[in-house]
Amino acid sequence: MPTLPSTLSLHLPPLLIVEDSDEDFSTLVRIMQELQFQHPVYRAYDGEEALDYLYHRGPYADPQMAPRPAVILMDLNLPGTDGREVIMQVKQDQNLKSIPIVVLTTFNNPRDVSSCYQFGINSYMLKPMGIPALRQTIQSFLHYWFEAIVLPTDQQAK
Amino acid sequence: MPTLPSTLSLHLPPLLIVEDSDEDFSTLVRIMQELQFQHPVYRAYDGEEALDYLYHRGPYADPQMAPRPAVILMDLNLPGTDGREVIMQVKQDQNLKSIPIVVLTTFNNPRDVSSCYQFGINSYMLKPMGIPALRQTIQSFLHYWFEAIVLPTDQQAK
Repeated sequence: MPTLPSTLSLHLPPLLIVEDSDEDFSTLVRIMQELQFQHPVYRAYDGEEALDYLYHRGPYADPQMAPRPAVILMDLNLPGTDGREVIMQVKQDQNLKSIPIVVLTTFNNPRDVSSCYQFGINSYMLKPMGIPALRQTIQSFLHYWFEAIVLPTDQQAK
Repeated sequence: MPTLPSTLSLHLPPLLIVEDSDEDFSTLVRIMQELQFQHPVYRAYDGEEALDYLYHRGPYADPQMAPRPAVILMDLNLPGTDGREVIMQVKQDQNLKSIPIVVLTTFNNPRDVSSCYQFGINSYMLKPMGIPALRQTIQSFLHYWFEAIVLPTDQQAK
């Protein structure tokens, strides 16, 4: 089910968060609300649900329930279908590959980082310990992707 | 020839700027110096020189002259080999594709933006008119790529 902050503006491009931890997801959304982030936020619990969302399968068969995300913020270590598998599938799909994927994870293994960039992620952020540091990270993420840069506006490959 | 700000620290990961306009390049470097950016900055004038740099060809045969960039900041409309051609070549090369490419251009055509993301760029920034707005853009770029996120550290594909 999509989870939407109370202050959402449905005309703004949505963010899809892929995060299996309820606690981490709640913290992310609370920080985003504190930072006045107005875009609708959807959630997938794991890689399988992220792919269902993006391919409009199962509970997401209705495209209205799963609008194309402007950006995907994704944990890496997910139960079942792993974050790496989602990255590979999305970045090999001509219709989906232009969607920026930002990894947000506690892993800081250089091989993980490099292989994610090899698979085509747009950037890799560390999930720091403690709320103040996480707020900084989320602030940098939101500012860059939703204010500083130009996002692709296509609904599918040109 | 590489162009290095006077305050460089050679142990920090370098930035490669691909920009044919001398005036624009000077402005970028001046802003980066004002923002206390300490990383070495290398310049390629056009797409052909960017590829010579990355593949260690011609004047860049000595790898010391052309260290692997941590990030590439690239104008899109370049004489000869276009920025789009550089993006395609880099993002199809297993050894180079993990290097983040950020486009910085005056073009704001949605088709240009989408096709660059399709080709695998990491993000697309507009080059605004006027120094204060450009300083904001460069500050966002430097903060995100050199402070907020984790860059790949590989020298080649794993």
